[in-house]
Amino acid sequence: MKTTFRPLVLAAALTAVISTPTWALQPNNEPISPIPAAKVTNPAMVELGKKLWFDPRLSKSGFISCNSCHNLSMGGSDNLKTSIGHNWAEGPINSPTVLNSSMNVAQFWDGRAANLKEQAGGPIANPMEMAFTHELAVDMLNSIPGYQAEFKQVFKKDTINIDQVTDALAAFEETLVTPNSRFDKWLKGDQKALTKNELDGYKLFRDNGCVACHNGVAVGGNSFQRMGLVEPYKTDNPAEGRVAVTGADADRFNFKVPTLRNVELTYPYFHDGAADTLAEAVDTMGRIQLGKKFTPEENAKIVAFLKTLTGEQPQLTMPILPPSSDKTPRPEPFAKK
Amino acid sequence: MKTTFRPLVLAAALTAVISTPTWALQPNNEPISPIPAAKVTNPAMVELGKKLWFDPRLSKSGFISCNSCHNLSMGGSDNLKTSIGHNWAEGPINSPTVLNSSMNVAQFWDGRAANLKEQAGGPIANPMEMAFTHELAVDMLNSIPGYQAEFKQVFKKDTINIDQVTDALAAFEETLVTPNSRFDKWLKGDQKALTKNELDGYKLFRDNGCVACHNGVAVGGNSFQRMGLVEPYKTDNPAEGRVAVTGADADRFNFKVPTLRNVELTYPYFHDGAADTLAEAVDTMGRIQLGKKFTPEENAKIVAFLKTLTGEQPQLTMPILPPSSDKTPRPEPFAKK
Repeated sequence: MKTTFRPLVLAAALTAVISTPTWALQPNNEPISPIPAAKVTNPAMVELGKKLWFDPRLSKSGFISCNSCHNLSMGGSDNLKTSIGHNWAEGPINSPTVLNSSMNVAQFWDGRAANLKEQAGGPIANPMEMAFTHELAVDMLNSIPGYQAEFKQVFKKDTINIDQVTDALAAFEETLVTPNSRFDKWLKGDQKALTKNELDGYKLFRDNGCVACHNGVAVGGNSFQRMGLVEPYKTDNPAEGRVAVTGADADRFNFKVPTLRNVELTYPYFHDGAADTLAEAVDTMGRIQLGKKFTPEENAKIVAFLKTLTGEQPQLTMPILPPSSDKTPRPEPFAKK
Repeated sequence: MKTTFRPLVLAAALTAVISTPTWALQPNNEPISPIPAAKVTNPAMVELGKKLWFDPRLSKSGFISCNSCHNLSMGGSDNLKTSIGHNWAEGPINSPTVLNSSMNVAQFWDGRAANLKEQAGGPIANPMEMAFTHELAVDMLNSIPGYQAEFKQVFKKDTINIDQVTDALAAFEETLVTPNSRFDKWLKGDQKALTKNELDGYKLFRDNGCVACHNGVAVGGNSFQRMGLVEPYKTDNPAEGRVAVTGADADRFNFKVPTLRNVELTYPYFHDGAADTLAEAVDTMGRIQLGKKFTPEENAKIVAFLKTLTGEQPQLTMPILPPSSDKTPRPEPFAKK
């Protein structure tokens, strides 16, 4: 390794290694492991979760669904710096991809939700996002015969509650994995899966220390790290990261390391969405996290490697949502408060 | 027929009959004919059109796609009184369903677009809807290698233009038909496809004159008629209908008769979206168009019949959109003008 690691970086790298036992388990000793295909154990719950995922009636306006900001046609993201919420609210932070999110150590950039189920309830009730309440969402669902029947079939209860809603959403999200990227094929031994240029890019990525944080099955997502380890990260975005959850000053500007799976599709990058392109993101990361200025050639090679992390996207048949009944409260997109 | 037709209604009925030769051609002499399945002649163009349909990059914000207001999970509509557009603009009129829209005599409530191709360019450039321009939309598409290749394959040209975009969108929309509703099965001779209650509802619908306007393959969509024939329709909605296109005073409050196919899914009803339920819509229509007050029993039977018009919804695999390149202009959802 030619890179001079700063002590903080090394510490971060070691933490990552310790919390990522997969590192040592790879077939060819690489710090990244292939994504396994999703195992669907409860297809009825997954199907119900898919309906909820695409149902804008979970928002006050009847217009915003989970898929609005985590669009499964666009890498599970909205490709916006920060998202658009109820009443065109400008979101505070970049929407992370839902793809492979089951592999994250926790959910949200600051990790304030322990898992997908806990996360799923957040946006529904966030006044800047779907602007609904759990109570209203559940009332809506209970008023729809098609949902009543489907929830009953899945959960064996007569009444729908928010716990069932978030369980079903999480079950669906767990299926949103992207196996068989070209890089995974290479990891599994297919030497022809990558070009020399891409493999050079991977070696630069690995040997310059990017893998200190971006490792494991999701190439990230498994630790919190400081944004601006070597050099401060300049941004107008007020988010302070993990400190909002732990209250610990040491966690200020610590954010969950994003997965790099499908990173070609999940632009723009960083918690503030400030980097429009992979080239820019690689340049900034090298500089502020590793104290390294990649040459244009190195940068291009790393970008070429990153594009090999695009896996098979979930093939989804759009659900047909059960219609509202006469009793279903109608959405109020233009209500003044 | 027991209904006393008012002269205007009769005239309307006759016009409809004359412009709907299918009336006389039905296997069992009914004024409604079954929907044939879609014939796909150019699958590559349809597939491209599907991508465009779901692509929010055709809007200024990068957030609004065709599917936002004509949601194929919800009967091809948004189930809102009027739609939400760029910057949360309150739309002027209820979004009609895209399902079976190829059967319409013209597009939009006032028929200002002759066909689907002509319609498709409208919302993209409407400042209250997608708020983009055709030029910017085409620049965006031309900057994306995946689209470049796919357009070239379909249209055999090196450069993408708006004509190709609307051609592809229209080709996709033409596939969005909903055959094999229970009513169509009955029309084709399956006597068990309807319950007695539903069949009674159909006879009420037919024999009270609803079929004067709601006839043909789409159960509507094939003529313009005055909203408030017998009794004025009261609404705060300023739309004046067909007069906006023809300038003829006789066309004031003439609107395209909406299709009743899948009407169970396309609530709320009327050009102003004022009727939340089918019961309300049937009641209002009977009163203001036919001068008829349906009893609650009659109303319920007609509603039961209308629900048999729900056909097989298009089974769509969500497209995976080609990612933007470094050169693709980024959407500006929060730009001040």
